[in-house]
Amino acid sequence: MKASIITIGDEILIGQIIDTNSAWIGQQLNDIGIALSEIISVADTIDAIRIGLDQAVAVSDIVIITGGLGPTQDDLTCEALAKYFDVEMVFHEELWTRIQGMFAKRGRQTTNLHKEQCFLPANANLLENTMGTAPGMHIKTMAAQFFSLPGIPYEMKYIMETHILPTLAKSSPVHIVHKTIMTAGQGESILAKEIEHISSILPEHIKLAFLPSLSKVRIRLTGKSTNDKEALHKEVIDYAHQISNALSQYVYGEDELSLEKALGELCISKKIKIATAESCTGGLVASKIVSVPGSSKYFEGGVVAYSYELKQKLLAVNKSTLQEYGAVSEEVVKEMLTGILKETGADIAISISGIAGPGGGTPEKPVGTIWLACGSLSEQRTKKLLLSKDRGLNIEYTSNVAINMLRQFVDTSVSS
Amino acid sequence: MKASIITIGDEILIGQIIDTNSAWIGQQLNDIGIALSEIISVADTIDAIRIGLDQAVAVSDIVIITGGLGPTQDDLTCEALAKYFDVEMVFHEELWTRIQGMFAKRGRQTTNLHKEQCFLPANANLLENTMGTAPGMHIKTMAAQFFSLPGIPYEMKYIMETHILPTLAKSSPVHIVHKTIMTAGQGESILAKEIEHISSILPEHIKLAFLPSLSKVRIRLTGKSTNDKEALHKEVIDYAHQISNALSQYVYGEDELSLEKALGELCISKKIKIATAESCTGGLVASKIVSVPGSSKYFEGGVVAYSYELKQKLLAVNKSTLQEYGAVSEEVVKEMLTGILKETGADIAISISGIAGPGGGTPEKPVGTIWLACGSLSEQRTKKLLLSKDRGLNIEYTSNVAINMLRQFVDTSVSS
Repeated sequence: MKASIITIGDEILIGQIIDTNSAWIGQQLNDIGIALSEIISVADTIDAIRIGLDQAVAVSDIVIITGGLGPTQDDLTCEALAKYFDVEMVFHEELWTRIQGMFAKRGRQTTNLHKEQCFLPANANLLENTMGTAPGMHIKTMAAQFFSLPGIPYEMKYIMETHILPTLAKSSPVHIVHKTIMTAGQGESILAKEIEHISSILPEHIKLAFLPSLSKVRIRLTGKSTNDKEALHKEVIDYAHQISNALSQYVYGEDELSLEKALGELCISKKIKIATAESCTGGLVASKIVSVPGSSKYFEGGVVAYSYELKQKLLAVNKSTLQEYGAVSEEVVKEMLTGILKETGADIAISISGIAGPGGGTPEKPVGTIWLACGSLSEQRTKKLLLSKDRGLNIEYTSNVAINMLRQFVDTSVSS
Repeated sequence: MKASIITIGDEILIGQIIDTNSAWIGQQLNDIGIALSEIISVADTIDAIRIGLDQAVAVSDIVIITGGLGPTQDDLTCEALAKYFDVEMVFHEELWTRIQGMFAKRGRQTTNLHKEQCFLPANANLLENTMGTAPGMHIKTMAAQFFSLPGIPYEMKYIMETHILPTLAKSSPVHIVHKTIMTAGQGESILAKEIEHISSILPEHIKLAFLPSLSKVRIRLTGKSTNDKEALHKEVIDYAHQISNALSQYVYGEDELSLEKALGELCISKKIKIATAESCTGGLVASKIVSVPGSSKYFEGGVVAYSYELKQKLLAVNKSTLQEYGAVSEEVVKEMLTGILKETGADIAISISGIAGPGGGTPEKPVGTIWLACGSLSEQRTKKLLLSKDRGLNIEYTSNVAINMLRQFVDTSVSS
């Protein structure tokens, strides 16, 4: 089984948006043992879509199409598919009812354009999209299976995960087993070196990949086999255990667990309440903690004290400390930490102050200088980072370090 | 003149890396009036490359190939091109001398693999690459012009900017002009309806596209002409003005301006200080404000009051209000707003409380119920949202609505 992706949209061809959908789809198909032949991006014209379809069918059995399903006149995928397969457009009453319901619930009016979205090629089966108005479609012909999806990433992902991947996985002849080990706080070169004795003896059918992101490295084992799936699974898990043991000080979980989820699980099991006091990260640490469902069980809240005044007023940082050491200093983050702990009554908290850039640096404290403090009223740990000149990267990286510091502190703290 | 891009590499098809090169090349070509017909990503095999070349030549005069020029055995572009054009591979002495020089300068040894990189298809002209060992190539045939470039972004960009774009720009007969209008707070169907009187009279050579994302819609005009570029520019700008005027209540800027940047510019020009009081968005609104360089000029800070206790303690919300109306209510967000304004001394603030989900909903207040209040001590505006069941989307969408409310309030407020 071979697949192709066709992405439809002028915005991709003129480089206004980067096609991230195809990478995600490629990963998902790869995970279930289906290889991609091609990714083809074409313009918003009937003709370009027809050419793309011809090219895809020539090299694949499965064609996944994204984009061009919106309600406006530059959305031509339905019309192009109807012409390509030489079928009528048929009105789908049940889709129209669903769209009207969605709008009624939000107290908004539908338009004629939404009604037009309910005309689909006669040979298409509807794939329900609860995330938006544009439906997914499945068209099966002698030549190939076609899936048409909206270009909006979360709608596309919903339909892929709900309707398409489970069906394709069942029909794929190759067994693929993945195991991902999540690490934080160490770079990939060092990690690779520390598990060389394991990676060098891996059999041919089990591959190892290091997938680094800001302050985290995912280590992924992928086993492929057409034989016994159980045996393959056992083999992969066994190597994963060996790797986890060798890297135990950096491993915080497995299988795409996020740092904030790992932190949350620890807080719940240890019955610990946490809080945040942020300056340069501007609330990103708090928002990552809150991104976890159920975080209200252990997250009290936080303060974003961006100005000197708020650091004093909300976090009881001493004016003299700010004047003597500056806002970006070990002394100030320690006072911020004490302040947020007292203010919120949390057991453990984190505080951050730094120069994210691009402005605000000095020879003594260049852009990228960040101080963090983490701990309780009785024990504090501090850390200094010297990062890059890129504001966005500095903020993102620091927020991950902060959550990892919190996680490590909660992990080693005594249960209350 | 029409161009296609072929990107070569398994890592793109399995989604291990996202193809950012093509977006960049698309932008550059678009800027000099060369339209992209297709972007085709293919695997690291001679056969896949041949199919990609056939597809590209069928729809383009210019074929830009990236990737597969490195020194390892999975780099097959040179061999594939030689086979495709049925020519010998020829050793380039001057390239070998240059590579040896590069390595000597860095005190490193060349290997046989590097020497093999100097064998290029006989019909190729070398395009010098001072950024790495892999050369760029230019092959001209009756069917099309082919350019082959390394996949490493900075090497690709160097060769494009130095050797390819200047030449292509000279020979391009088409002028292209873009104008993007940024809107927030209304869906694309309604926007489309409100400018139907303009979109229906657009001349054939000016196209309109709606590019929606969470709570924002970008409206893009693209004009193409072989005639007077100045006149085309004037024409596109004129239609953009008409659209902006028709949608003035939703338009917040142009050309990829972010909502938070637009808010920041208004705060600076009106000398207004802002603050945030967040519950369900957990600091995301503050972190978006802080993502803008220089935001310390107008952002005082904020509070993430996730628990009932912190809403009372940090934002002076009355216990009786919480008990009578619940944390997710108009009354509570109004008190949160007053609280954060008094606590921070900011001129204008936003407060948010809602049920992001997936848990916590009741029949009366289902998941997705969000209240916002925005304003100053003398004027408050409130808004209720009824969103979906997806926690992440609810938080992201609400944070955009919040920043847009702040922006609108600052926009219409009297300068201090």
